[in-house]
Amino acid sequence: MNKKQIKLAYIGGGSKAWARVFMNDLALTEGLGGEIALYDIDREAAERNRKIGERINAHPKTISRWNYVVASSLEEALQGADFVAISILPGTFDEMAADVHIPEKYGVYQSVGDTVGPGGVLRAMRTVPIYEGFAKAIRAYCPKAWVINLTNPMTICVKTLFDVFPEIKAFGCCHEVFNAEDFLCCVIKEELKVKRPDRHELVIDASGINHFTWIPKARYKGVDVLSLLPSFIEKYYESGYTEKPGVEPWDFRENPFFYGNKVKMDLFKRYGVLAAAGDRHLVEFLDRGWYLYGKEAPDEWLYHLTTVDYRKEDQRKKIAESEAIARGEKEIVPERSPEELIELMKAILGFGKVVSNANTINRGQMMGLPIGSVVEVNHVFDEDSVTPLVAAPLPKPVEALIARNALNIENTYAAIKARDLKALEEVFLAQPLCGGLDEKDGRAAFREMVQATRAYLEPWYDLSGFLK
Amino acid sequence: MNKKQIKLAYIGGGSKAWARVFMNDLALTEGLGGEIALYDIDREAAERNRKIGERINAHPKTISRWNYVVASSLEEALQGADFVAISILPGTFDEMAADVHIPEKYGVYQSVGDTVGPGGVLRAMRTVPIYEGFAKAIRAYCPKAWVINLTNPMTICVKTLFDVFPEIKAFGCCHEVFNAEDFLCCVIKEELKVKRPDRHELVIDASGINHFTWIPKARYKGVDVLSLLPSFIEKYYESGYTEKPGVEPWDFRENPFFYGNKVKMDLFKRYGVLAAAGDRHLVEFLDRGWYLYGKEAPDEWLYHLTTVDYRKEDQRKKIAESEAIARGEKEIVPERSPEELIELMKAILGFGKVVSNANTINRGQMMGLPIGSVVEVNHVFDEDSVTPLVAAPLPKPVEALIARNALNIENTYAAIKARDLKALEEVFLAQPLCGGLDEKDGRAAFREMVQATRAYLEPWYDLSGFLK
Amino acid sequence: MNKKQIKLAYIGGGSKAWARVFMNDLALTEGLGGEIALYDIDREAAERNRKIGERINAHPKTISRWNYVVASSLEEALQGADFVAISILPGTFDEMAADVHIPEKYGVYQSVGDTVGPGGVLRAMRTVPIYEGFAKAIRAYCPKAWVINLTNPMTICVKTLFDVFPEIKAFGCCHEVFNAEDFLCCVIKEELKVKRPDRHELVIDASGINHFTWIPKARYKGVDVLSLLPSFIEKYYESGYTEKPGVEPWDFRENPFFYGNKVKMDLFKRYGVLAAAGDRHLVEFLDRGWYLYGKEAPDEWLYHLTTVDYRKEDQRKKIAESEAIARGEKEIVPERSPEELIELMKAILGFGKVVSNANTINRGQMMGLPIGSVVEVNHVFDEDSVTPLVAAPLPKPVEALIARNALNIENTYAAIKARDLKALEEVFLAQPLCGGLDEKDGRAAFREMVQATRAYLEPWYDLSGFLK
Amino acid sequence: MNKKQIKLAYIGGGSKAWARVFMNDLALTEGLGGEIALYDIDREAAERNRKIGERINAHPKTISRWNYVVASSLEEALQGADFVAISILPGTFDEMAADVHIPEKYGVYQSVGDTVGPGGVLRAMRTVPIYEGFAKAIRAYCPKAWVINLTNPMTICVKTLFDVFPEIKAFGCCHEVFNAEDFLCCVIKEELKVKRPDRHELVIDASGINHFTWIPKARYKGVDVLSLLPSFIEKYYESGYTEKPGVEPWDFRENPFFYGNKVKMDLFKRYGVLAAAGDRHLVEFLDRGWYLYGKEAPDEWLYHLTTVDYRKEDQRKKIAESEAIARGEKEIVPERSPEELIELMKAILGFGKVVSNANTINRGQMMGLPIGSVVEVNHVFDEDSVTPLVAAPLPKPVEALIARNALNIENTYAAIKARDLKALEEVFLAQPLCGGLDEKDGRAAFREMVQATRAYLEPWYDLSGFLK
Repeated sequence: MNKKQIKLAYIGGGSKAWARVFMNDLALTEGLGGEIALYDIDREAAERNRKIGERINAHPKTISRWNYVVASSLEEALQGADFVAISILPGTFDEMAADVHIPEKYGVYQSVGDTVGPGGVLRAMRTVPIYEGFAKAIRAYCPKAWVINLTNPMTICVKTLFDVFPEIKAFGCCHEVFNAEDFLCCVIKEELKVKRPDRHELVIDASGINHFTWIPKARYKGVDVLSLLPSFIEKYYESGYTEKPGVEPWDFRENPFFYGNKVKMDLFKRYGVLAAAGDRHLVEFLDRGWYLYGKEAPDEWLYHLTTVDYRKEDQRKKIAESEAIARGEKEIVPERSPEELIELMKAILGFGKVVSNANTINRGQMMGLPIGSVVEVNHVFDEDSVTPLVAAPLPKPVEALIARNALNIENTYAAIKARDLKALEEVFLAQPLCGGLDEKDGRAAFREMVQATRAYLEPWYDLSGFLK
Repeated sequence: MNKKQIKLAYIGGGSKAWARVFMNDLALTEGLGGEIALYDIDREAAERNRKIGERINAHPKTISRWNYVVASSLEEALQGADFVAISILPGTFDEMAADVHIPEKYGVYQSVGDTVGPGGVLRAMRTVPIYEGFAKAIRAYCPKAWVINLTNPMTICVKTLFDVFPEIKAFGCCHEVFNAEDFLCCVIKEELKVKRPDRHELVIDASGINHFTWIPKARYKGVDVLSLLPSFIEKYYESGYTEKPGVEPWDFRENPFFYGNKVKMDLFKRYGVLAAAGDRHLVEFLDRGWYLYGKEAPDEWLYHLTTVDYRKEDQRKKIAESEAIARGEKEIVPERSPEELIELMKAILGFGKVVSNANTINRGQMMGLPIGSVVEVNHVFDEDSVTPLVAAPLPKPVEALIARNALNIENTYAAIKARDLKALEEVFLAQPLCGGLDEKDGRAAFREMVQATRAYLEPWYDLSGFLK
Repeated sequence: MNKKQIKLAYIGGGSKAWARVFMNDLALTEGLGGEIALYDIDREAAERNRKIGERINAHPKTISRWNYVVASSLEEALQGADFVAISILPGTFDEMAADVHIPEKYGVYQSVGDTVGPGGVLRAMRTVPIYEGFAKAIRAYCPKAWVINLTNPMTICVKTLFDVFPEIKAFGCCHEVFNAEDFLCCVIKEELKVKRPDRHELVIDASGINHFTWIPKARYKGVDVLSLLPSFIEKYYESGYTEKPGVEPWDFRENPFFYGNKVKMDLFKRYGVLAAAGDRHLVEFLDRGWYLYGKEAPDEWLYHLTTVDYRKEDQRKKIAESEAIARGEKEIVPERSPEELIELMKAILGFGKVVSNANTINRGQMMGLPIGSVVEVNHVFDEDSVTPLVAAPLPKPVEALIARNALNIENTYAAIKARDLKALEEVFLAQPLCGGLDEKDGRAAFREMVQATRAYLEPWYDLSGFLK
Repeated sequence: MNKKQIKLAYIGGGSKAWARVFMNDLALTEGLGGEIALYDIDREAAERNRKIGERINAHPKTISRWNYVVASSLEEALQGADFVAISILPGTFDEMAADVHIPEKYGVYQSVGDTVGPGGVLRAMRTVPIYEGFAKAIRAYCPKAWVINLTNPMTICVKTLFDVFPEIKAFGCCHEVFNAEDFLCCVIKEELKVKRPDRHELVIDASGINHFTWIPKARYKGVDVLSLLPSFIEKYYESGYTEKPGVEPWDFRENPFFYGNKVKMDLFKRYGVLAAAGDRHLVEFLDRGWYLYGKEAPDEWLYHLTTVDYRKEDQRKKIAESEAIARGEKEIVPERSPEELIELMKAILGFGKVVSNANTINRGQMMGLPIGSVVEVNHVFDEDSVTPLVAAPLPKPVEALIARNALNIENTYAAIKARDLKALEEVFLAQPLCGGLDEKDGRAAFREMVQATRAYLEPWYDLSGFLK
């Protein structure tokens, strides 16, 4: 078996959901093998995943068997690594509950709460200091490794890695654009009355910032796909339409990760280009009055506010399931996920070119956004290289919406780097989701959120003077 | 009398207030003489000003007597002009009433309504097509003349002039920065316990966009003036403080052009730099929730919403006064105003250098804002030249606030140039003053405003499809 | 026959060499068919190629048979075209003889004389006006067609197309980078003692301007290929090394298109990155004193000065051969060339992604060169799209060498556009190949060259005042 | 005596010529007084200047008496300084002789040899390490002081100061532009038949890099001064014309600091804008073949090669004179020089605005040159501020000439910072003055120059491996 042998350090290796998906994908990957070093501050969770990994190794459908180990330190995980995948939860779901739900008291509703907006800022405050440590450790222990970020807030995580260690070989990976591509495949199916194509058959430009990327041009077998949208939208605007197989547009009422793409269709009507992330992400980059004006807004726009209670319950189920698998009480059958991460790794290892979206430092790929900020565009993944394509220009009004958020994120990062709570409060108020919010309410919300998550902030910030 | 002889075309020469100030200043200007060609679509008003000009000529205190003529066409006014001053009201106060007061029904209050925000967008829609005509006429009849814009919305007027006729020698002139300098002179007086200095004794950096400029550095006789502000603010934050001689901070209740500088002080507390325009202008560039969250906000922040009824009444008084002067029933005694326009003209004519703020196309003076957009910075005025100084960098969070508005203005201009009402509706919704406004309300407000001012839009826009 | 049917307009379709290569490639292309409209001012030559095309169609090895037609006008060729290929000789070889050999009298030797340097400038003067016409015709008759430029001077041809018709879908195609890749494959073979790989197995960054591109990074199966060069160069610096199969390094003495790569190796020693074009092209971008200091320089540096007599003789042979084929006296056996053009066309038609180098307008792909100038970097070719990758930064001293030439080319283009002979004389003097040339001699050379090629300049330039 | 009291640290305070000029100017300056701390590695020379300072203090025409002290260390000089003036000779005239004359053996003649070209590179290699020390010392001992550089190579000295200590308040000061202004005053006198005006009556744009600045626009009392040049040049091109009062154009034969402005007139004929430095400086930025093609070139172009023997003899005389003054054997009568330095200092101290040229970091003032490089444009000098004006665009062909040198200087600096002799050798070869020079000769010249000046290089560079 002439497989390429690698070592991958999995930081956050105790992950409840994503780890299983990843291990399944690894099991079905030809041509690769080696060691997966699971590292997590919750060592027990990492240990559980190690056991699941062994179950998968033992499964007859498995093609590649991996050496799953639990690393007892970050250093141990990183030493000799060829790849580092980072997927962590900064704090616990209790902190996330504060991120998401405290602002509701002040009239600010959030559908996700982990990227921008009040929750995004607070989460960034917990995350950046941890990532500063990761970047330093990578520089010390595996400076040549390729580092793949999977954690939110994506933009600010990738920014931290490059700011602390400018020579790092890192990129951020997110599947939200895929969903928009799937949506376009549905449009093709409905409008051209053909079998729904696979998203890889599309050729798209996509650019922007993570969770707020846009598609100004999409082609499929000689067809300008965006030109099909007006007719499609006329039919499905009110009812919604979901690209998820086996799901109905109204299922968002049951599952807060679903949505009816009505926001996306509305934005297309407004700007003529397609926003390329789930509606629940898109709305958080836009003024509060547009799609998140109150508790009733999601229902009208066919998406859901994802409560953290839902996440907690979901996690409880996943842990129980993981434990059952680890104990051998439940079978796990490897099956390929729609995630692309392993394809990207293989391209980097020299198995052939792949073009896909990624988040990296802007060095010309988007001239309308600040050079040095983190942007998401298509990249060519190839042997030891991840190279951005120059993005097609977006309509200027869309560029302005992105620029507003991109500058906010740069300012958030700078304020965290300086551990400047006063500046953070200001950038909090400048969030589109705080649009029209009484300034005093905004300040109260920020302070209440800082107070509620102080256990995870105190190691890094001097809260005493600030909270009084 | 060896005076430099010039011809100045005064477009909007029927102006009620500013013309008298300007003619007074002209009367007291040494070294200059020549012709002032008054042009106005309200010819009667121009004629009235011509008569006032002759009264002033006849006054014994007058140093320079000018040949005031009423031009019967734009061409006649411009032919042979060395200078062109433009100061017009696009539409009437009825249109301005729509600009300012219709949004109130939807919860959007405006303190001025002529720059950005709902009123600024509608006013720009009326103004840009007129300015396109001015630029073409200047190119045809006096391409070498220096063109001075005094009309609001300043940024978009100057943009139009340069976009239509790129070689134009134009700049925009505004006294708002002077008020901020006067305010700093008061700070010096109070904090250093000295006689209030003249604003010309200060050395300041100022940059941004018109009505939203900022001072990151101010010096006076070796003193860092901004360093005096924290102590000053501690004393006067609550009560307010006005730089207008003979006015009390609370007089804003009587006169809507007054204000207590509380917003300015608050912004300094937030960002550490001084916003350099009247508070009533500043608040319109910021999120609705910050200083314009409701009818009660002005009172709390010590400024006033300028009603258009007030303006109408004020205008009635001024016309009556003008007529009285024109008929010789009321005396007019020339006295020097604090306006700088004539100093700038004299510098351009070679009487000596002046450094003052002006609005021109960004070609390096503010690297943080789009090249090609109109920005306001200090310029050196000298013989046949108006040259921008490179601005000192502003704090990034302030730059982000400015950039948001600058991009909005660029997008407003592009949409007007394309006569694209749909795009205008979107940029209307993107105004900071529409922050948190329900999108549907925003659209309703825009359409109601278009409807109310349609007489002045129909010549330029195809409203039929839009308003239905 | 389920082939994609296209129409390609071949401007310069009477080409002696390249047409045959292209028709052979077309014959062996699966999945494509349609019409090739040959257009040439030498209609007889186009007719000859049409007949060759039919011979190829008749050959049993041919997979795709094409409808070769001779267009009697540019309009006829372009109407309905999906692709336009342009490969012309501006003027005749007599003009090229002037380009190349007149400067020799003044001590300026040129190895090619068609890109930059004295010959490049004169050739550009003949070419740009013709290309202005092409761009206008394409805009009029087939604005959606993909336009592929193959003519030198490449950079300035592509610049003309985009400057005249900014929405054009055009790129320039050149195989010089392939030679450098082949050279690296030889390095791999020699240094790693493995079978010479195919150049498609390499992954390279390449960037710069046409005929002066550079490779700062090359990978092959986990190996940093550039790191192999020092040892390789130690062995082959003196003797030279050629990547051409069946050719010895010293064969450049017989065939002026060959070279021993000594210049390339020397430049690597100097700058640490690999210049990615034939040595005979590279030397023309560099100071005259470096590799073209006299008649003896080529011999020392293992390349040849390509005389135009050689080209004429070569052309005579090719015409004779073409005629023999056209008359059926000589067989033509279709065989695949190493050219990539058809692969690129297929990618554009949706047959799958290809990454290859191309020349397009800089809109971020090379931040060190002027935005708006034409640069050569890798692009992703995909359905209806040719998208540049952001280039890896080159060493600053190399960037300076490129920038000098890029600015010269921009200035050459601007002077031609303005038909300004005086400005052209200055940019002629500023060529690196005129380094150290007595200014008076430079002027004399320029004027003599203009005089010698005046038949092809007079339609566009007012020579009377200039030549006196 | 109500004078502003300052401390100025004069590094290189043993200066033979400039110190006397400066002390004379100081003596005649109203409103200023304080301490001048002379620091020099040649303490004896500083001591001599101190004594001269006292002689000047004693003179009855003296208005301001200064406290001249000799500092025994850099730290002592800098402690408490408000201003730092730096005017040093890196190495001795023996090193300068190597800089200037060794290249002659290889056919490279230099008229000055202290800015760019072979001599400029070698001088920079000696200077930058010393300036690194100055910058660190200023940061340590007087970080708020205004630092005025007077040493050549100006551009690279200023670059070093800002690169080592980015917050430094520094600028470089050079009078070469004044000479060009004086020349334009002569043009006015000759062409308008008026009394020669004073250069302060002109209004000019000037921009570029030090010793290679250009004037694209000059106005004098309503006259476009450049428009007078063609007629002036017709008269004086052959004979030359000098702006120095009492000097004839041919006096350059006696005094190598004189020149006939023929180069300047020739460049105007070529590019339509006026080069704004002495001809002897200008020629060093241009290709060797243009104005420095051999020993005979200066005579033809009416300037002189300044031999270092001349400088040595001149210095001997100045020292003798200084000693005579110091001993009281020769009288010194304070008289005002045409230098502007003290005016600039007074502006910085708040005595009123001055507009003059200076060298600072490009942050928008010249968009055609690299941001971060040092450029020379007009600045407004005002209280505690030196602010660049945005330069008028130069013709693109001139911009290309400047850019070539600006990039070379950036690369020279980077190579010195890295102490990389190999990279320095390459940037040496890339000098315009090495145009057409056989590469081998260039390398030999560089190595011979390094060898000849090794005493001043060895402390900073590892020469052993390089020189073998």
